Amino acid sequence: RGRVGEGIGKAKAERMFGLMDGFLNNDPVSLQKSILDHVEYTVARSRFNFDDFEAYQALSHSVRDRLIERWHDTHQHFKKKDPKRLYFLSLEFLMGRSLSNSVINLGIRDQYVDALSQLGFDFEVVAEQEGDAALGNGGLARLSACQMDSLATLDYPAMGYGLRYQFGLFRQIILDGFQHEQPDYWLNFGNPWEIERVHVSYPVKFYGTVEEEFVNGETRKAWVPGEMVEAVAYDNPIPGYGTRNTINLRLWAAKPSGQYDMESYNTGDYINAVFNRQKAETISSVLYPDDRSYQGKELRLKQQYFFVSASIQDIIRRFKDVHDDFDEFPEKVALQLTDTHPSLSIIEVMRILLDEEHLGWNKAWDIVCKIFSFTTHNVIREGLERIPVDLLESLLPRHLQIIYEINQMFMEEWKKKIGNDYARLSRMSIVEEGSVKSIRVANLSIACCHTVNGVSKVHSEIIKSRVFKDFYDVWPEKFQYKTNGVTQRRWVVVSNPGLSALVTKYLGTEAWICNVDLLSGLRQHASDLALHQDWKMVKKVNKTRLAEYIEMMSGVKVSLDAMFDVQIKRIHEYKRQLLNILGIIHRYDCIKNMAKGDRAKVVPRVCIIGGKAAPGYEIAKKIIKLCHAVAETINNDTEIGDLLKLVFIPDYNVSVAELVIPGSDLSQHISTAGHEASGTGSMKFLMNGCLLLATADGSTVEIIEEIGVDNMFIFGAKMTDVPALREKVASTKAPLQFLRVVRMVKDGYFGFKDYFKSLCTTLENGDDFYLLGSDFASYLEAQATADRAFANQEKWTEMSILCTAGSGRFSSDRTIEEYAKKTWGIEPCKCPSDY
Amino acid sequence: RGRVGEGIGKAKAERMFGLMDGFLNNDPVSLQKSILDHVEYTVARSRFNFDDFEAYQALSHSVRDRLIERWHDTHQHFKKKDPKRLYFLSLEFLMGRSLSNSVINLGIRDQYVDALSQLGFDFEVVAEQEGDAALGNGGLARLSACQMDSLATLDYPAMGYGLRYQFGLFRQIILDGFQHEQPDYWLNFGNPWEIERVHVSYPVKFYGTVEEEFVNGETRKAWVPGEMVEAVAYDNPIPGYGTRNTINLRLWAAKPSGQYDMESYNTGDYINAVFNRQKAETISSVLYPDDRSYQGKELRLKQQYFFVSASIQDIIRRFKDVHDDFDEFPEKVALQLTDTHPSLSIIEVMRILLDEEHLGWNKAWDIVCKIFSFTTHNVIREGLERIPVDLLESLLPRHLQIIYEINQMFMEEWKKKIGNDYARLSRMSIVEEGSVKSIRVANLSIACCHTVNGVSKVHSEIIKSRVFKDFYDVWPEKFQYKTNGVTQRRWVVVSNPGLSALVTKYLGTEAWICNVDLLSGLRQHASDLALHQDWKMVKKVNKTRLAEYIEMMSGVKVSLDAMFDVQIKRIHEYKRQLLNILGIIHRYDCIKNMAKGDRAKVVPRVCIIGGKAAPGYEIAKKIIKLCHAVAETINNDTEIGDLLKLVFIPDYNVSVAELVIPGSDLSQHISTAGHEASGTGSMKFLMNGCLLLATADGSTVEIIEEIGVDNMFIFGAKMTDVPALREKVASTKAPLQFLRVVRMVKDGYFGFKDYFKSLCTTLENGDDFYLLGSDFASYLEAQATADRAFANQEKWTEMSILCTAGSGRFSSDRTIEEYAKKTWGIEPCKCPSDY
Ligand SMILES: Cc1ncc(COP(=O)(O)O)c(C=O)c1O
Ligand SMILES: Cc1ncc(COP(=O)(O)O)c(C=O)c1O
Repeated sequence: RGRVGEGIGKAKAERMFGLMDGFLNNDPVSLQKSILDHVEYTVARSRFNFDDFEAYQALSHSVRDRLIERWHDTHQHFKKKDPKRLYFLSLEFLMGRSLSNSVINLGIRDQYVDALSQLGFDFEVVAEQEGDAALGNGGLARLSACQMDSLATLDYPAMGYGLRYQFGLFRQIILDGFQHEQPDYWLNFGNPWEIERVHVSYPVKFYGTVEEEFVNGETRKAWVPGEMVEAVAYDNPIPGYGTRNTINLRLWAAKPSGQYDMESYNTGDYINAVFNRQKAETISSVLYPDDRSYQGKELRLKQQYFFVSASIQDIIRRFKDVHDDFDEFPEKVALQLTDTHPSLSIIEVMRILLDEEHLGWNKAWDIVCKIFSFTTHNVIREGLERIPVDLLESLLPRHLQIIYEINQMFMEEWKKKIGNDYARLSRMSIVEEGSVKSIRVANLSIACCHTVNGVSKVHSEIIKSRVFKDFYDVWPEKFQYKTNGVTQRRWVVVSNPGLSALVTKYLGTEAWICNVDLLSGLRQHASDLALHQDWKMVKKVNKTRLAEYIEMMSGVKVSLDAMFDVQIKRIHEYKRQLLNILGIIHRYDCIKNMAKGDRAKVVPRVCIIGGKAAPGYEIAKKIIKLCHAVAETINNDTEIGDLLKLVFIPDYNVSVAELVIPGSDLSQHISTAGHEASGTGSMKFLMNGCLLLATADGSTVEIIEEIGVDNMFIFGAKMTDVPALREKVASTKAPLQFLRVVRMVKDGYFGFKDYFKSLCTTLENGDDFYLLGSDFASYLEAQATADRAFANQEKWTEMSILCTAGSGRFSSDRTIEEYAKKTWGIEPCKCPSDY
Repeated sequence: RGRVGEGIGKAKAERMFGLMDGFLNNDPVSLQKSILDHVEYTVARSRFNFDDFEAYQALSHSVRDRLIERWHDTHQHFKKKDPKRLYFLSLEFLMGRSLSNSVINLGIRDQYVDALSQLGFDFEVVAEQEGDAALGNGGLARLSACQMDSLATLDYPAMGYGLRYQFGLFRQIILDGFQHEQPDYWLNFGNPWEIERVHVSYPVKFYGTVEEEFVNGETRKAWVPGEMVEAVAYDNPIPGYGTRNTINLRLWAAKPSGQYDMESYNTGDYINAVFNRQKAETISSVLYPDDRSYQGKELRLKQQYFFVSASIQDIIRRFKDVHDDFDEFPEKVALQLTDTHPSLSIIEVMRILLDEEHLGWNKAWDIVCKIFSFTTHNVIREGLERIPVDLLESLLPRHLQIIYEINQMFMEEWKKKIGNDYARLSRMSIVEEGSVKSIRVANLSIACCHTVNGVSKVHSEIIKSRVFKDFYDVWPEKFQYKTNGVTQRRWVVVSNPGLSALVTKYLGTEAWICNVDLLSGLRQHASDLALHQDWKMVKKVNKTRLAEYIEMMSGVKVSLDAMFDVQIKRIHEYKRQLLNILGIIHRYDCIKNMAKGDRAKVVPRVCIIGGKAAPGYEIAKKIIKLCHAVAETINNDTEIGDLLKLVFIPDYNVSVAELVIPGSDLSQHISTAGHEASGTGSMKFLMNGCLLLATADGSTVEIIEEIGVDNMFIFGAKMTDVPALREKVASTKAPLQFLRVVRMVKDGYFGFKDYFKSLCTTLENGDDFYLLGSDFASYLEAQATADRAFANQEKWTEMSILCTAGSGRFSSDRTIEEYAKKTWGIEPCKCPSDY
């Protein structure tokens, strides 16, 4: 720990060195002192009187100190080694809480538990004070978070970039069974996990015009902006597990630009002039709560470009700090685009190389083609992002010019390859003609990136055969896939300590935490009854915790002997929560019509549903209300008792997932085949030994390969059947048992008859696009199989163990290794532990 | 240091006690460690590489730790003793910088200087990194800041309340001689001097309706608001000098209220719904930049009520924490209203006592009448604040009802006293009829406060004989005055260390820092030539520093031998910067017309003007431009050379004042008699041994009493002559030498002929309301006297020493002692130093 900065006299440096040698100590007494110092001087409370929340604040500042130390050293080490770096660009990161994860990754959880308990506080209780960082919608955003954890743990020289939304994903409030949305004031009580970097800031330009200059006989274009906003960096240290490496997730916030004020105003209406400047901040103020499309909204486009411009300026600044030849750029920089949201980066790099670095077009283009890789999460062409040309022209006039030039270049190239197939050429064009002329961002990304990744094996097939077929035929070598994964650190070690300890005990090592393939070692114990005993005990503890939470949130008491059957994810028609609810109605109806004696044979169920609907998505909101209406009827039916309960868990987020997943027996992933690109929720359940009831969609297909169809409950139409089924649905009647449950809803059995009418209409008269009707019988059968399996607890436990044992492939560590080797070309860069 | 909080086990408390006994250490090594820790963990920079700004941040966090310790102990001590407290309510506080002031008041400046220098940093350079906290316009706001310093130093159990404007007073940028306004992004780089108290927050209500309820046979009114905003506290510790007492200045910031969200929205347009909620923050976002009137603006009224409501809720909460009988309220609470800006407090207390505490009207009224005192800064009836009834009715409907009731009560009382003198009754009424029906906030304040204070002896006369004559005749006992004062800690000890050391040397004690009357001891040394020598040396050092600053800001080189003649204050017609400029033109004209030989006898001058014009105040802006235009001509006239220079110092604020005042020889306070209520700038110059050239206005009259007219340059019309002079001006011609200089401006001698036309019009054709013409001759004479005096340096130095020696009466310590004894009825409450 002895590097001495330049520009500082030796004596001075030595003096400082003497005062600051060594790291912060982590023995319980040092930790206590550190916590109490933060109580007094950071939280500004009395050292003799502070509550759990204040203890949380002080504790996290103490952890923050330790994170900063490593984050700093990692930064220095990367700087010294100057390896090729990966820049991971994502508009969404769903980080959840940081405290427990940080102390576990730093390896100092036990010390903190001790330190706190001697001060009279319980670590678990204190950790519960933390709110979620929810800067994302769902799967894509949580995937970004998991991948950051793997990048840090695997010592890759990587850095994440995103936006620091002042309001993250809305809070879901349920009033009377209806979803209401509340802003997420996540920063109101401070955020100890970020470091404000007031001096790391860049101007971001908007609007204006493009002017031409003639310099040395060349025409140069210069963008003269009409508006300027400042992007300020907030750094979030991401600690790896079992390593000193702590990488950086840099999030940008918008501030009014002082620079722009230099053309200052001289106005009587000063107050309003200030308000107008302050509006700059709205750019980063709200996360868009739609998880599948953001069409044509100016603010959304501003967010994207704001994010892109700040990140690219930062990346180029870092490169230029040590290099002066852009030829080396591709050897030092890999840029990963998470979906098309950051795709304007391609144009931004091109623009900077052309207009600011004054490279020629060919040289600039050469560089651009080598640095970007792109991962798509889309399954349908209609879902692809388009930017109206009018909007782009007004907001980013120079970028539009460059896009046109690139498109022209490609159209010529393609014409040479495929001839005058104009229908196909017009499909491939980056510019979409039509009533609203638009830029197809996906086409742009495919054309300019060296690699296009899918997120699962089936997804890859969909891309090649459907969504991007035209491109696959021209550039087959560009198309790859990396099946998504999740980090076992958060999803097992942090959230399921019981299981984690048990696994370590039976494997005889903790190594699986960084090498999750070792979990397969559990297979040899799958029928060991001693393990069964322990395994069931762990599950019971987790179910108890979940049952308490359910009772607290909804007042419903549930039986621990029942099967906990969970579907938690965004509410979407394609994810078919409605199929689940109709299945529950069917189950309820069956029990009601059963002879008393038969009821004894029913396997008791607790059906748990959770998820948010986008605020403008009416049908999804109706599904939430239906869930509550059905729950109201079932839970208050004394005839039913513990045989069936239905609960909706409000405000689903990462922390809720961490609580629910370890406590569930069965989980549902029942999207219509061909609609889920990957799905990562299922992987978390799998790792936690929870059985899956699922369609052969997205990554489930690969889970089947690992676990075997016998250890899962697979049902429903295959992807290849779907087109034919859709045609059939239009002409044939749905099965009777399906029509019966739909009719119960329609006839007002659960009340709110008028309100549910349009919901029922989506299923009737051949409109059943998501095939709930045609999958219904098969769904019920899979549910019946699950019931039978659950009745045999030893069999069930064995299946459960085999789930965990087979989950190794679904670690984000594996995903990241694949990306590093096959797509990014980066190597680990480990910070020595005695830095 | 051994109090143990309740609710914590003994063992635990003892453990914590063991870990945290004693205060932070202040030896240089501890301070270095503390600074470096903050560099690494708070500023998150490398301990081996940080710049002056980062050193400033770390240093101030280190000081902040020490402030928090004392602030906390003071809070505990007040809580334990429960004395009567003073709450000082002001919408403006002009605090300036905090670092130097804090370390001096804490008595640890030298230790920090050492600690820093051993790390290779210069304290002065580091301290220059700090920006001003400029949450106020001018005199009133700086007075509030000085009084906070005195309250802390004198150990009074006091607390300040104000608003935490996100943008303080605009930054003045001069482009081409014109003033432009830039928002003051003072929080952009963090503010180590405040402590965010996220849990100290109150809902503030607006709009809505008043409903009636019948409870136990009584009618109760309940205000049902239409909007709710949250007020969050930011605490600013104010350290006393030479005492452990560190009091609190609590500033409120507006945040969207989560509470209000409970009636949540269920909307497709979620993004816009969030933006609407975010608008709440605009309430506290900008300080109004007009220093004399804020008529009829809804946002201004919202600011006032927001401030009042949060403060009163906080005060009542604190009272109720330990008392349950409101009869004791007046024994525990004194509320000081700084001008009429916080006067809605009166109604707010009444409303809470009536509608929320359910006290009867008489009892509530009785309490209200005992607790408020009010200080007016106004000199003219037209300047008094009025709130349009329409606005108040919509924003605060219940308050309007209460005001009407109070008014009715008083109208009856007054009728009994003065009979049916309807003209007078209508002048006294709180409600003003007329084209815009309004509430007269001053009348309300006078009626409901137990004391009405003026800010100087003359001001008191103006109030009694002019502004509030009607009220004085009814309630003579209510009217008092306390001449304003300034704190010698900031204005001498912090900003003029040379003079400070010299004074201490000659008085043989530092006691004058807390007992400024001791300065009179300098009188006996006034003709001591050894002292003269030192005194001139100190002045020279200060002039050198100022000259360097002038050169840096304006490029003008000035001679140290010249008389530095300063006028720095807000630009206002009544403050007559224009008179000063016209005088300078006259001087220039004289020199130009002088025989070469005579020029040698001219006393060289550097005229320095600084100040901001309100953004909407056109005439004031023209005065600034004129100053630049004249400077341009004079400074570039090689014939003139060092005989005359004119410089405008941009962006006048507290820090600039701290630099300029110690370096000036002469200062001007030349308002038209009867227009300046007090003026505090003059007192700062006086303390620093700078001679005054002034009209007999405001506190200058009392300065004359102390210093004697022979040691000052007094000129111009007396207040009592002004009405007659105004009439005369309308009918007679201005003196020729005046018309000549005005004509130079008008004829375009300095350019910008058209632009200056309307400025000249204010002086001509009998429109010369501020009597520049009639005072001109006398002004020039005073200037000539000053020239002659300056020519005799020993005489001048003696006068200078006598200024400092006679400045004791103008310490805010004296002002505060008077308030405490005569108005507030509070006693010191000293925190023991071994707490
Ligand atoms: C809060 C949250 N949302 C969404 C997801 C993604 O779930 P799925 O892949 O089941 O849609 C996850 C995964 O755990 C999550 O934690
Ligand atoms: C920044 C600032 N503005 C205004 C004033 C008040 O000046 P005056 O009383 O001369 O108007 C002061 C006093 O020093 C000040 O520091």
